[in-house]
This record gives sequence, C-alpha cells and structure tokens, in this order.
Amino acid sequence: MGTDTYRAHNFSAGPAALPTEVLEQARDEMLNWQDRGLSVMEISHRNPAYMAVAKEAEQDLRDLLSIPDNYRVIFMSGGATSQFAMVPLNLLGNGGRADYVDTGHWSLKAIREGGRFGEVNVVCSSEEQSYTTIPDRSEWKLDPEAAYVHYTPNETIGGLEFMDIPDVGDVPLVADMSSTILSRSLDVSKYGVIYAGAQKNIGQAGITVVIIRDDLLGKAADACPTLWNYQQVADNDSMLNTPPTFALYICGLVFKWLKRQGGVEAMEKINKRKAEKLYKAIDSSDFYSNPIDPRYRSWMNVPFRLKSDDFNAEFLQEAEKAGLLNLKGHRAVGGMRASIYNAVSEDSVDALISFMAEFERKHD
Amino acid sequence: MGTDTYRAHNFSAGPAALPTEVLEQARDEMLNWQDRGLSVMEISHRNPAYMAVAKEAEQDLRDLLSIPDNYRVIFMSGGATSQFAMVPLNLLGNGGRADYVDTGHWSLKAIREGGRFGEVNVVCSSEEQSYTTIPDRSEWKLDPEAAYVHYTPNETIGGLEFMDIPDVGDVPLVADMSSTILSRSLDVSKYGVIYAGAQKNIGQAGITVVIIRDDLLGKAADACPTLWNYQQVADNDSMLNTPPTFALYICGLVFKWLKRQGGVEAMEKINKRKAEKLYKAIDSSDFYSNPIDPRYRSWMNVPFRLKSDDFNAEFLQEAEKAGLLNLKGHRAVGGMRASIYNAVSEDSVDALISFMAEFERKHD
Repeated sequence: MGTDTYRAHNFSAGPAALPTEVLEQARDEMLNWQDRGLSVMEISHRNPAYMAVAKEAEQDLRDLLSIPDNYRVIFMSGGATSQFAMVPLNLLGNGGRADYVDTGHWSLKAIREGGRFGEVNVVCSSEEQSYTTIPDRSEWKLDPEAAYVHYTPNETIGGLEFMDIPDVGDVPLVADMSSTILSRSLDVSKYGVIYAGAQKNIGQAGITVVIIRDDLLGKAADACPTLWNYQQVADNDSMLNTPPTFALYICGLVFKWLKRQGGVEAMEKINKRKAEKLYKAIDSSDFYSNPIDPRYRSWMNVPFRLKSDDFNAEFLQEAEKAGLLNLKGHRAVGGMRASIYNAVSEDSVDALISFMAEFERKHD
Repeated sequence: MGTDTYRAHNFSAGPAALPTEVLEQARDEMLNWQDRGLSVMEISHRNPAYMAVAKEAEQDLRDLLSIPDNYRVIFMSGGATSQFAMVPLNLLGNGGRADYVDTGHWSLKAIREGGRFGEVNVVCSSEEQSYTTIPDRSEWKLDPEAAYVHYTPNETIGGLEFMDIPDVGDVPLVADMSSTILSRSLDVSKYGVIYAGAQKNIGQAGITVVIIRDDLLGKAADACPTLWNYQQVADNDSMLNTPPTFALYICGLVFKWLKRQGGVEAMEKINKRKAEKLYKAIDSSDFYSNPIDPRYRSWMNVPFRLKSDDFNAEFLQEAEKAGLLNLKGHRAVGGMRASIYNAVSEDSVDALISFMAEFERKHD
C-alpha cells in the first residue's frame, strides 16, 4: 500500500472521517501488531499488552481534557443512544426525577427514553423556533431537587451548539457530547456526567466514553443491567466483560494523534477557523443559507440550504465527482450538511468552499 | 505490506484468531474502501453502500446456518454477557420464570444475571463434578411452564461441549453459542433464541449475533431499554441506532471466508479432525491430561494440564518462542488451554502437537 492512497473529502455526520494517519497505522499493524504475529483484535483483553493499550487510551484522554482525579473514565459498548437509558438507570435510583433541555432531535430522543425510567421534566424547548436557537438560560424552569440536568451541547442534525456551559447550580449537569467532545477545550469539573459516542470525534461506532464524577456512582436502580452499571464498570476498569477491543484501540490511536496535533487547544483554533470560513462563505452568498441563530452555530455540523431544493441532486452529484462526499443533509432538516470534525482538515473545508462558489457561479 | 507478514499460531480463547485472508482484506481496504476514498468505518450506516454490507452479512449467515424464514437475525452492540440480561428482559415479560442448565462458568454468569430479572430455576448442575461432565437429560427437573430453557452448548473455560441438542419439549430453548457457533452444522429450528458474541468464531469483540424465532418477539418487559428490545431492533434491521459498523463489516468478511472454505459442513470436518488429533496426543501421553468426560469434550476449547504445574511457566515460555501464543489456561481451571476455533488452522494444531511431544521428550 502506498501512502498516496486516494482519500476523499469526507463530510459524513457519523460514522465520520478519521485521521488518515490513524488508519495508516491500523492498516500497517493489522496482521502483525507489535511484532507479535497477530492483530490487536486477536488478543485477550486481559493480556498485559492489550491492557496497556486500554490504560494508555484512558490516560491520553485524561491528559487531553485535563480530567480531574475525582472523575472516572469508562469505555462502554454501544453508542450514545444507549446512554439515554443508562443515565437515568444509574442516576435516578429506584425513583426520582430529572430535568432535560430540549434543543433538537437528540435532546428529544434522550427525553423520550429517559421518561421510561423516571420522571422527566422538560425545562425549556426551542421546538417552536424549529430548533434554530437555544432558549435563554433565564427561561429554564429548573427543579432544584432534580437528580440531574441533561442537555445536548451540540445537536448534530440541527447544527446548534452551546458556546458556554449553562449554570445549573448544584444539580449535576449531564451532557451528550458525542459530536463536540475534543473539538474545543472543556472544563470537565462543571459536569456530573459527560458521555460521547465515538463515531464523530473519537473513533469508530460501537464504543462510548463516559466521564463521571465519582460521587455519582453507586446510585443505580435495581433494574439496571450489571453491564450498564457505571460503578461496576468503573470498578473493573471497563473490563467487566470483554470490551470492544479494536474500537478502543482506534480511540487510543486518535487520542495520540490529537496529542501530536497539539491537543484540544490546537484543535479549537483550527476548528474555529474552519467553521468561521464556512459560515462566512454561506453568509456572503445569496445562494446558500444557514438558519441557525448566529450565536449558536455549531462548529462541527454546518447545515445549509441551496437557493432552491431543485439544485440539491445536482449539487450532491457534482460534489461527489469533485471528491466531496456525504454532504446530504439529514431528512429532518433537508438541504446539505457539512460535518467538519477534527479529522476533517482545513484543506477539505477550503475545497468545499471553492466547490460551493463554483457551483453558485454556474447556477445563480 | 507483503503477504508473507509473520503470523503466529494463536490459541487465544477470545478475542481470538481471525482468518489471515480476512485481516488482509481489512488491511487493504482500510484507507480506500470500494475505491470511495474512505474507510468502511468512516461512512454512515444509512449509506446504501454500507447497508449492502449489513444485508449481505445477514444473508451469508442465513446461508451458512440454513436459518429458517421464521427466524430473525439481528446484530447488537456488546458481547454475549449483555444477553444474560437481555434474554430475560425480552422473554420473561413483566414476570414469569425460566429454566437454566448449569454446566460451568458461563452458565453460572447467565443464571446470576437472569435471576435479577425474573424467577430462575436451575434444572441441573455438574458443579459437584467440577463441571467435567454434563448431567444426563433424564435428571433435568424441567418446568413445563417456564418461558424458556437456557443452556451453554460450549463452556469456553471448562472445555465442555454438548454433542446433541437437548430435547426440552415445547419450551423455547435458548443457547449461548458464543464459542461454538459456525464450528459445526446446526439445526436452528430446534431453538427459540441463539446468541453468540462475535469474538470467537465470527469476528472482533463488541458485536453479538442474535437469532430469534419470530413468535418470541414482542414479549419485552417494561423495564427493557429500547435498544435492547429484540422486536424493535429486528424491526429496524439492526439499525435502531448506529450499529458497530466496522465490527459488522468484519463479521461479513468472516462469513464470506467461511463460504469459500465450503461452509459449516466443511469446517465441521476440519474441526473434528483438529480436536481428535489434539485429544489423542493428550490421551496417549502420561505427561498431559484433560479432565473432561470424553463424551463431552469441546471441539473448540481444549484445556490440558502438564504432569506438574511446575512446568507451566517454562511450557508457556518455550511455546511463545516457537510462535505458539496464548496457551495459558483460565485461572479458574489452571494449566493450559488451546482454543482451536475455525480460524486456527490444522497446521497450527499440528505445530502445537509437535511442540507438546518435544516438550514432553525433554521433561519427562
């Protein structure tokens, strides 16, 4: 395999682009990892060589996010959607209620599943604004007795992102960070629980990171399956059963890649620049538009409409010819969406902007 | 990468050896799958190209096991251990009881977790025989009103395997086939539910296959998380949420590899031969021993002891030097264990037998 293998510009919302360097390493080690004569996916999770992989992945994530010592980091099978049940099963005990912020598709899914395991109070919603904005914090009807407040810092489908951490007092703040984690600096100490499916900014689908303040462990409901009990998983270093070993190995490679890029602070600068230039290209054109309140436009997921939906099919076709893939917007929103996670380079964003300008020139 | 990459003889109990051809294909496609300029792990599960992968994987498994049309095949995140909770959550409804057969470590784990979600009746146990045999079917105290009978056709740690399917009348039979599925022909129609974690005979850790008779769907308890509801997962073609896409792709490659080998019937012949020659080598020596009732010796997991445990460390060290890896037995049993799944070639078994003979010659 040459290092000049063709790589498209990949704007997939998830499972999403991974750093080429990470895939190259995975490829080169696929048959013979660490000169052991086997793949990393062919070895027991209890093997010291593999346990070192898992331990390093955790430590690298701790370094990248400066995770305080009183937080546990666990890796769990499945995606963030499973956390919609796991969070209430772990934090509500055998009763209790929780507050949820509704800012779009993923918030709503968390609310619906959460409501199956406890009393759920929707403290605010921007549904009437078609989820194009975030309700002012002053309007949230928080319950000081809630077990937690759940929110979605970045709505992957809507393209709506919180720029600040909402102040919810002493009630633990729980965040689905699937599509924003590691894209910018983060004060973990403001949270009770952070969870993130890997398939956007961390790795492949099938593994989820959970960061939990240790005083929130040990509150699981009787009906919580053992493998979903944060406390038990944490006490067994995420190896209560066989973890998704290859998926965790890929996470580890991504964490090392992030460190080589200069960490989350360096990514934040690049991501800000990428997002700003793409929104600027949209705003400075009459052909493209983005409906989101400019205060809350996502750095990671940039939905945009063309002047007419009649152009959509041709736009996608031409883009694909130009090596710009997976730009079709989610059916709930329509139009286009460019997901520009960490692994999507500034070059890819530049290529998209050039293509958009050229398409506009030909069709306006 | 050359095709002559060093590959050890890998006797890992799981995550276990995969066919070299499968890993080669995964390696070669890692950066540029189907000439799309991206990895299969970097694409949405809703992309038609990926959906074709998922559909083919299911169909190939159906072909390999001749799965009848009234059975649904689903792929779920996580390992078989999660099924220990999922089975009762899906089959017991909001009450009800189930029968469990206890033949070792994994049976017991299923019993313990099952008991958290319903009334569990242990119908027989070979614990008093240190799990070296299987209680005669005539001794099982079955409950005709049970929602199901659960058993473990192959105990990975003990090395104990059912050679026939137990007759349990009209009560649905549920089997944890993690370490035996696809190793020999199987009459799926005798079962209510078959589940198998992938990391032995199917693929990498983090994905589990569930084969379920369709009349058993729709019985889930209220407390069953949506993502664990067999009916909902089946109705959404295993894409109720993002599945572990790369893990499923690897399963698909393994299924294609199995078809190229001549299917399960061809593997059965090879596996029988591999197991018989290894047990023969053990039995014909005074240096090695296997404690299992010869009627129930596992074809997949062959535990054996050396004349004295004092030789264990040297045996493992010398084996490793000879390229024979992961032979250490589970701590619950001690000694050695050779797991000889489908992907472990007859050459590897021959190499092990030669090594064992040479080691005996030097130490007896």
